[in-house]
Amino acid sequence: MKLEQRYEGKAKKVYATENPAEYIVEYKDDATAFNGVKKAQIGGKGEINNAITAHLFPLLERAGVPTHFIEKLSEREQRVRAVTIIPVEVIVRNVAAGSFCKRLGIEEGTALSRPVVEYCYKSDALGDPLINTDTAIALGWATNEELSRIRELSLKVRDFLVPFFAARSTRLIDFKLEFGKTLDGTVILADEISPDTCRFWDAETNEKLDKDRFRRDLGGVEDAYAEMLRRVTTPAQG
Amino acid sequence: MKLEQRYEGKAKKVYATENPAEYIVEYKDDATAFNGVKKAQIGGKGEINNAITAHLFPLLERAGVPTHFIEKLSEREQRVRAVTIIPVEVIVRNVAAGSFCKRLGIEEGTALSRPVVEYCYKSDALGDPLINTDTAIALGWATNEELSRIRELSLKVRDFLVPFFAARSTRLIDFKLEFGKTLDGTVILADEISPDTCRFWDAETNEKLDKDRFRRDLGGVEDAYAEMLRRVTTPAQG
Repeated sequence: MKLEQRYEGKAKKVYATENPAEYIVEYKDDATAFNGVKKAQIGGKGEINNAITAHLFPLLERAGVPTHFIEKLSEREQRVRAVTIIPVEVIVRNVAAGSFCKRLGIEEGTALSRPVVEYCYKSDALGDPLINTDTAIALGWATNEELSRIRELSLKVRDFLVPFFAARSTRLIDFKLEFGKTLDGTVILADEISPDTCRFWDAETNEKLDKDRFRRDLGGVEDAYAEMLRRVTTPAQG
Repeated sequence: MKLEQRYEGKAKKVYATENPAEYIVEYKDDATAFNGVKKAQIGGKGEINNAITAHLFPLLERAGVPTHFIEKLSEREQRVRAVTIIPVEVIVRNVAAGSFCKRLGIEEGTALSRPVVEYCYKSDALGDPLINTDTAIALGWATNEELSRIRELSLKVRDFLVPFFAARSTRLIDFKLEFGKTLDGTVILADEISPDTCRFWDAETNEKLDKDRFRRDLGGVEDAYAEMLRRVTTPAQG
């Protein structure tokens, strides 16, 4: 049973439960971009992102990535392990896109010769600025050990997801992860994995099937999210 | 003897010589800030930065940091080893200041619990954007081995300079380094170490004795540079 709200983010609310070791997450249809400057609702997004995350997290658990996911409770809700979010967002890039291209003057779609792991300080007020591990440690946001584990787990997520999506006609261009600490200090994957937090391009056409359709006013936003749910929950081809 | 100009940067020109393994560097009085938006001349800066660098680089060599410096030739010129500059600038921070504070919402002067090493892509067109080592490797700007060596040498420079300046009533807040590769691929310290590339605060008053006086229109720019030359070349107190 949901008790008091613990946190409201741009796309989710988090509620306490009677069990201090568990939270309930509620997925919203709200979408924001450019650090909250652009706002809208994407019909069905909450249900889709809940379903995609509820499908992927147990697969990641089996692949050796501990996550906060316990079970899907309803169309918009899931039960998760209570964590304190580490305020260091991780972006894993396989192909150059988005802010990375703008910052570095690189054409979108340029293949990276190896995965690039970037870290941002989770702060809406500051626009999630790019940082590095030295900065996170020096300012007390995470320890060296936590950051090593976060990097290890992030690359494990990549190693699972890239072939998973490739087998479903989808290129995983980049994705954002957040990690949390349980009461005993264990680092586990939290947040979500969805078209809000990943760039998905169709393997044949490079059509964008993610939040960039909203960010860039490409239209067909709801259809893209629904298509990604279909791909994620469809058994691999071949 | 100077032959053709090889490179002109914001504060220095680099010339070929009859020896392909050597260049001549000429220090200019030109000062720029905010990615070239603010421009001026600082009287005597070229001579002062040449003298400070010519004083510090041999001390760093003795401390185990290979550098491009060979000898001071004239008030504005020094003979150096020819290198290809690695396009990854290194910033070593001991105390939060400047862009770091703005980006992360931290008060200038906040002590960092350990040194922070940041990397930027050396590109005037892009405004020297912050990167990390993954990005530098993935985009071919440096190898993993070169970046490990660059970090090791940067921290060695810090370990030498912090007590050096402390013994001269000066806090070394942060500094920028550039490294180059010799013809045989050895990574050595290049560029300069001066009030253009370091933040120096007086140990008693925290008065700024560096390029921030120019960036922030604090006045007394020439005096601050001259004072830093005096401190660098004066034997340690106590």
